[in-house]
Amino acid sequence: MLSFASDYIEGAHPKILEKLAETNFDIQPGYGDDAYCLAAKEKIRAACGCPEAEVYFLMGGTQTNRTVISAYLRDVEGVVSPVTGHVNGHEGGAIESSGHKVLTLPTEDGRLDPAVLRSYLRSFYSDAEGAIHMVQPGMVYVTHPTEYGTIYTFRELEEIRAVCDEYDLPLFLDGARLGYGLATPGTDVTLSDIARLTDVFYIGGTKVGALLGEAVVFPKGAPKHFFTHMKQNGAVLAKGRVLGIQFGTLFTDGLYESIARHAVTQAERIRKTLSECGFRLHIDAPTNQVFVVLTDAQMEELGKRVVFTFWEKPDEEHSVIRLCTSWATRPEAVDELCAILCDLSGYEG
Amino acid sequence: MLSFASDYIEGAHPKILEKLAETNFDIQPGYGDDAYCLAAKEKIRAACGCPEAEVYFLMGGTQTNRTVISAYLRDVEGVVSPVTGHVNGHEGGAIESSGHKVLTLPTEDGRLDPAVLRSYLRSFYSDAEGAIHMVQPGMVYVTHPTEYGTIYTFRELEEIRAVCDEYDLPLFLDGARLGYGLATPGTDVTLSDIARLTDVFYIGGTKVGALLGEAVVFPKGAPKHFFTHMKQNGAVLAKGRVLGIQFGTLFTDGLYESIARHAVTQAERIRKTLSECGFRLHIDAPTNQVFVVLTDAQMEELGKRVVFTFWEKPDEEHSVIRLCTSWATRPEAVDELCAILCDLSGYEG
Amino acid sequence: MLSFASDYIEGAHPKILEKLAETNFDIQPGYGDDAYCLAAKEKIRAACGCPEAEVYFLMGGTQTNRTVISAYLRDVEGVVSPVTGHVNGHEGGAIESSGHKVLTLPTEDGRLDPAVLRSYLRSFYSDAEGAIHMVQPGMVYVTHPTEYGTIYTFRELEEIRAVCDEYDLPLFLDGARLGYGLATPGTDVTLSDIARLTDVFYIGGTKVGALLGEAVVFPKGAPKHFFTHMKQNGAVLAKGRVLGIQFGTLFTDGLYESIARHAVTQAERIRKTLSECGFRLHIDAPTNQVFVVLTDAQMEELGKRVVFTFWEKPDEEHSVIRLCTSWATRPEAVDELCAILCDLSGYEG
Amino acid sequence: MLSFASDYIEGAHPKILEKLAETNFDIQPGYGDDAYCLAAKEKIRAACGCPEAEVYFLMGGTQTNRTVISAYLRDVEGVVSPVTGHVNGHEGGAIESSGHKVLTLPTEDGRLDPAVLRSYLRSFYSDAEGAIHMVQPGMVYVTHPTEYGTIYTFRELEEIRAVCDEYDLPLFLDGARLGYGLATPGTDVTLSDIARLTDVFYIGGTKVGALLGEAVVFPKGAPKHFFTHMKQNGAVLAKGRVLGIQFGTLFTDGLYESIARHAVTQAERIRKTLSECGFRLHIDAPTNQVFVVLTDAQMEELGKRVVFTFWEKPDEEHSVIRLCTSWATRPEAVDELCAILCDLSGYEG
Repeated sequence: MLSFASDYIEGAHPKILEKLAETNFDIQPGYGDDAYCLAAKEKIRAACGCPEAEVYFLMGGTQTNRTVISAYLRDVEGVVSPVTGHVNGHEGGAIESSGHKVLTLPTEDGRLDPAVLRSYLRSFYSDAEGAIHMVQPGMVYVTHPTEYGTIYTFRELEEIRAVCDEYDLPLFLDGARLGYGLATPGTDVTLSDIARLTDVFYIGGTKVGALLGEAVVFPKGAPKHFFTHMKQNGAVLAKGRVLGIQFGTLFTDGLYESIARHAVTQAERIRKTLSECGFRLHIDAPTNQVFVVLTDAQMEELGKRVVFTFWEKPDEEHSVIRLCTSWATRPEAVDELCAILCDLSGYEG
Repeated sequence: MLSFASDYIEGAHPKILEKLAETNFDIQPGYGDDAYCLAAKEKIRAACGCPEAEVYFLMGGTQTNRTVISAYLRDVEGVVSPVTGHVNGHEGGAIESSGHKVLTLPTEDGRLDPAVLRSYLRSFYSDAEGAIHMVQPGMVYVTHPTEYGTIYTFRELEEIRAVCDEYDLPLFLDGARLGYGLATPGTDVTLSDIARLTDVFYIGGTKVGALLGEAVVFPKGAPKHFFTHMKQNGAVLAKGRVLGIQFGTLFTDGLYESIARHAVTQAERIRKTLSECGFRLHIDAPTNQVFVVLTDAQMEELGKRVVFTFWEKPDEEHSVIRLCTSWATRPEAVDELCAILCDLSGYEG
Repeated sequence: MLSFASDYIEGAHPKILEKLAETNFDIQPGYGDDAYCLAAKEKIRAACGCPEAEVYFLMGGTQTNRTVISAYLRDVEGVVSPVTGHVNGHEGGAIESSGHKVLTLPTEDGRLDPAVLRSYLRSFYSDAEGAIHMVQPGMVYVTHPTEYGTIYTFRELEEIRAVCDEYDLPLFLDGARLGYGLATPGTDVTLSDIARLTDVFYIGGTKVGALLGEAVVFPKGAPKHFFTHMKQNGAVLAKGRVLGIQFGTLFTDGLYESIARHAVTQAERIRKTLSECGFRLHIDAPTNQVFVVLTDAQMEELGKRVVFTFWEKPDEEHSVIRLCTSWATRPEAVDELCAILCDLSGYEG
Repeated sequence: MLSFASDYIEGAHPKILEKLAETNFDIQPGYGDDAYCLAAKEKIRAACGCPEAEVYFLMGGTQTNRTVISAYLRDVEGVVSPVTGHVNGHEGGAIESSGHKVLTLPTEDGRLDPAVLRSYLRSFYSDAEGAIHMVQPGMVYVTHPTEYGTIYTFRELEEIRAVCDEYDLPLFLDGARLGYGLATPGTDVTLSDIARLTDVFYIGGTKVGALLGEAVVFPKGAPKHFFTHMKQNGAVLAKGRVLGIQFGTLFTDGLYESIARHAVTQAERIRKTLSECGFRLHIDAPTNQVFVVLTDAQMEELGKRVVFTFWEKPDEEHSVIRLCTSWATRPEAVDELCAILCDLSGYEG
């Protein structure tokens, strides 16, 4: 059966496996001090246009969010996030477990509106008497692309940065799917922009072709003892080389970009077909995730031939589903999916 | 240069890499629901003689210790451990970070003496008035092999179990290097014994031939919501298959045992040479770690030709070093090491 | 200047101070084992109609909420609360600091609607796949009276209890101002009802005539090691007698009830005057807190003669203020306030 | 029966109760913003010779230790303490519960030896590779008087300060019984010295004549958001005046000093009698706690007429007990106790 369930249903890009095999017998120190990690960090610094950046490799998104956020915040501080932020929902309470409240702001499509952020902060600090009884804002968290596949414009990121500067708050960008955001046609946001506008961000590996791994970048330097923070959070691999080798491969000869571009191209083909066949896209998400509204009858019918992710029910008779592409999505599979979808457009059950 | 620095200086056993490559394009669900994880769990249950056991795959030792211990303990409980226990030293405070005290007991060679444990518990509970002001013992933690490479006898484990039963405490066995303990000639402890005598233990993958991964086994069932505990601790891989494939391979055709046996055999050759050449072994550790006392001059000389781990200084003029073997240790490298060591035996700088 | 700022602007009811003086030289054990604590617990059990209840004395509301909630919850569990719940706002992140998320539900007037609670829980558990990635509901928290001075009916509490039973969740009632709720004319909720319908609740002392202190009641027994939970949270007084003496006095000769009745009566007089003089009450709160809408000009004018608490701005030109009564509110002061308020009714600045 | 069980078996010094009664109807803001707190802070600053100090009032020792330590430390840092430190034993794991390890150093009589501290820190930082896997020292904690009633000399405190400076660590002095240390004949340590040599310390009220309360002093300023840290830890009283009034009274006309001097004088009388009658003092503790070695038969006999605290068993046939004095200890009761003790000196059961 066809599957567009997510971008983590296959293994790794073959070049990564090749490199793991090729280097397997090479003797290296543990805990990230190996030559592969060092080389990969250098490549990432270069790609970010940020020769002074500190780079660390962690294993997955929740782990990274938890480790980074708790390394920045004092006990009484919380992290400001759109209510749809990954840290607020599907991380099993990882942030609260490390002692911090997620301070949620409303959002329409997963993006943090700079005006909403400013208004919240202005209001918080204007009540000096009440504020000291409450969790202090300590960091701003955004995802790019967001949980809804949407992306920020350069202008928006710049404005969020300006608000952060005004209130002296670090800005953290969760890039679990960063590659897809950078590879979206028409985006005016580059990796260097992100390095310039944030205090810390990460370049997702797991969902962009690696077996596992997220590369955390601190363009202006990391919080003190960050390695120990990683250790405490169980985020250090003895065989750290596993991460260094993967990121080294992804940042050689533009592999990271080409993986992402391939996936976005295939997603665009799906979106085009959906529009042509009269479906309604739920959210205007330009990256590798496609959100479409189906009747429940259509969804059921589609489920017989394609694996997808149920997203939510906008009303009694409709459902939103997500279709997702990756490095491993074959164009022929997309052809097949598109044919199925068009067949389905007039389906009434 | 020769390296006997640790058992995580190379990649994975080649069969693991082969299997990762072979299954790479297979489409599977994420988060450990894939067919490889399911199959590997079945194999592990069989190897443990424990068809009802629950098995989960995590990434590394500190992460596993933190997740398991915090899943068992209530806020006011601590984990009882020999003072040399890994949880008490080299985990960056992971246990305390999750809110729990490590309640340390003295030890001579890394092993927990059942009599010391009983005496501590008896004394703790005999002072009903004072005890309620103190951290409550909530779990007993042992490592096998220990941080000093020593192993328990069946009788000792049985006695520790008896004390745990007497005080209604779960017993947790950290098996980051479990394979080497089971493969030690003369041991009377089997995997089934461990499954029978503990409430939870793990089978270390990272240090016994895998790229990463620890298989946690709950012979009598896991604490409620254990998966969510893993998620909260950042211990769930999106591509959970990476762990299932590795453990499936390790538990096929006795690979796990043969890896461990090879390493222990090579370590025994080193120990034999050391004895024959007149060196003093620091601890009588029968597994894949060799602890030997050198003069500082000898250590410096050895360091020119071999990578090892400095362990501690027993006195002003001597040092203890550790030499470690693994699946990847070539017998010829051991030959070479042994020759160097014997040359060194009369060395006076 | 007149002050209706809160119910903690004076000291304690004089009978409490008398009793503290009278018993001052009596020698007693520390940490709550004194005769006064034992006697006060007995009186509270009797007042609750609950001879088997366990009772503990803590010092303040935030401390009590934190200690009780963290004693009940496992690491992966959160507490379900109306979004306006005290635990979600003005406690400086005490709940998150102890590792738990506050799972918020919408509310109109501070009360938890049983239907909203049931709908949330039904939806949470219906998505078995997603739920394991999220914080598990572990307890339900309500305040009575609420932060808006509103109270539940017997029927509503019974329905909330039914939902809790359905999902096997303990119910915790924060009674920081409980006395005022019980003393409200027309309420059909008694102390015995609360003891019967909840798993744990507390009888607020600080805001109902004591210097400090909250009496936590566990009608069906406390979580294991609750005293140690208190100790860990810094909630045990060496001179525990200070709390026992106060609660013993409050629960002798109906003092607790008469304090609350007096305050509610005075608040009712204010509400009556406000209505007669044409003001709009913001919320129909029948307890000792009065919430009224003023024009900003009226508020400014009032501020010259009376201390009150600014609550919120419903629109550009109006403000909601809170006026609060207590054991110490003199009827003559209320006369004076009422006269000022009526004068103000036609005020246009 | 006579009781020398502790210094918290009676209520408060009568002057405190008088002042509470006298001010009871005065209307004041809550949460420590009242005039009594402000005045008491001013008096404490003056007594410390430290006009710039920040002062906060908390309720008890464990609460204060937890709040202060967690306000200073980052997640990966621990607090260095003698193994006998109160934070390491009888606080129910309060420090670990807030995420931090207590890093224990050996001690002979409860005091931290500056040489032991320096040696630990030197060794910790000399192993740069290992250190990053371990909890980082983040603060030094001492008690004065210690849990064994011993006190530091000025020279010792100065040396500890020097080590702290060398390693850039804040120094925290737990003064739950500070008054008794300052009132000890022959001490060369003053309140101003402590203010000058520490970063934070507290002046114990609970055990030196108050109902409850500890005054935390930050001679060089408090950590950011300290009030919110207090709130989060449940350490803020709504009726903050209760603490302000008490400390204001203690620091008026030398009451704090005279309470402490009285208690130490009575303890000295007991020690003198014990020596004269041939008993062995367990520890040379010059403050208000007396530690004496009795045969078990003597202890049993004494227990028929006097309440004391059992401390520990140095051998099979002897016990150490503690006798404690306070503001409320009547000289006649000491006369009586001394007579009983001398009678007991030849007792053989």
